[in-house]
Amino acid sequence: MDTQPQGQLMIIGGAEETTGECRILREFVRRSGGIKARIVVITAASSIPVEVGYEYVEIFERLGAAQVQAIDTRSQEDGNTLELLRIVAQATGIFFTGGDQARIIRSIKDTILEDALHKRYGEGAVIAGTSAGAAVMPDTMIIEGDSDTNPRMDAVAMGPGLGFLPGVVIDQHFAQRGRLGRLLSAMLQKPKVLGFGIDENTAIIVNGDRVEVMGEGAVTVVDESGITYNNLDRVLQDEPVAVYGVKLHILPDGHWFDLAIRQPMGEVVGSRE
Amino acid sequence: MDTQPQGQLMIIGGAEETTGECRILREFVRRSGGIKARIVVITAASSIPVEVGYEYVEIFERLGAAQVQAIDTRSQEDGNTLELLRIVAQATGIFFTGGDQARIIRSIKDTILEDALHKRYGEGAVIAGTSAGAAVMPDTMIIEGDSDTNPRMDAVAMGPGLGFLPGVVIDQHFAQRGRLGRLLSAMLQKPKVLGFGIDENTAIIVNGDRVEVMGEGAVTVVDESGITYNNLDRVLQDEPVAVYGVKLHILPDGHWFDLAIRQPMGEVVGSRE
Repeated sequence: MDTQPQGQLMIIGGAEETTGECRILREFVRRSGGIKARIVVITAASSIPVEVGYEYVEIFERLGAAQVQAIDTRSQEDGNTLELLRIVAQATGIFFTGGDQARIIRSIKDTILEDALHKRYGEGAVIAGTSAGAAVMPDTMIIEGDSDTNPRMDAVAMGPGLGFLPGVVIDQHFAQRGRLGRLLSAMLQKPKVLGFGIDENTAIIVNGDRVEVMGEGAVTVVDESGITYNNLDRVLQDEPVAVYGVKLHILPDGHWFDLAIRQPMGEVVGSRE
Repeated sequence: MDTQPQGQLMIIGGAEETTGECRILREFVRRSGGIKARIVVITAASSIPVEVGYEYVEIFERLGAAQVQAIDTRSQEDGNTLELLRIVAQATGIFFTGGDQARIIRSIKDTILEDALHKRYGEGAVIAGTSAGAAVMPDTMIIEGDSDTNPRMDAVAMGPGLGFLPGVVIDQHFAQRGRLGRLLSAMLQKPKVLGFGIDENTAIIVNGDRVEVMGEGAVTVVDESGITYNNLDRVLQDEPVAVYGVKLHILPDGHWFDLAIRQPMGEVVGSRE
């Protein structure tokens, strides 16, 4: 599909507030249609899908969604049942829980369910994911990797994601786990010009080219469009890689980033020189 | 003193190898005069100065320095004894151990010993420090702060350093403790255009304007010369700060940075676009 999707993405860095105000989850319900929202919770990432599904159903019902259902796909067969496709076809908001991103890919990638999710996104549904559910949003995702490391070729394992936000790399729990080196490692291994490092209890909302930040922490945008790096054929996999000229923007709540012109925006007034 | 110091600095990110090859400590001895080196170990940072002093004396003797002495200054009075000043006046290499950087400042800042150290640096001695001993090298240092955080005004406490490398901010254990947010927080609080984040078992060697990297990890150079940031008067101290346009260079062993032209250098061949 080459037409611009009508839907929005909410990509959450994990550990979002699930009691009290629930600012991020509240915004998800609001954008999914508010009191008319029909929400589907996909627990595929979780090793305790029933418990996690129950928790999110309870939250979204408390926040006033008209209808909330958890779907528990544990294999590709589960993703191809007619009942499930019918539920997704009516959803206005789809929420991927946390857990292990590889599980999501294993049970959903290349299924009719995946097509149905993309179709709903194209038609205007909100697709949200937290932690592992955030990781699967790009076309290439970080499967696993080291935190608190300098950039190295062997620091991360990469694989295909669900492709809702192609052309970028996403990492979650970003500041809390010191993941700049991990994100840069991912961007070296599968070159992408933009990386988004999303802090806990923080989200980006993607609406066309506009990427808005909301929540408690910040989003670190890594722009490698101007970088040079050393001859990767000569660097062994456990050796640190030289990278010159990475550009970083650190965007808290209320700031946004324009994907088309690759510039951050918001109320910024000072400059260093 | 406005004349360029004749000496060199070796600023080590902590956890340098102390058995086997000891590449960084070996280079310190070599640059301090090799088999003619007269080395002084300053244990002021440590809560167990006798043990730490003994350990480094043993290492530098094993590496063949002609003379090695540990000096154990626990108060400003200790830093003003004639015997100690005589030892420093003859040193060709001075090594600050790790521990707590505030202890170094408490016992050495504004003493005759501090003047004597600067005099030796001016005359050609090598001044080295690891971890806390690295932190004290700039004129403004990070006393303590949070790792694994986004940039916030309250993330770090800053204070005066010993001023061997003025105009920059230094952080150590950098990738290992995920300290990008901490270093950026320090640079917001006491604006400096350049920050150096030094990984463990990794050092920068400062020789005039040339800052060379050696060791196992990498050095992250943070250049804020082009940044804009939000109105800091309006940001509460526990709120994340917006920073646009930070430039980063990640430099492993064999790469260097030129302080005069603010450019990294080394064998770099690829570019992203």
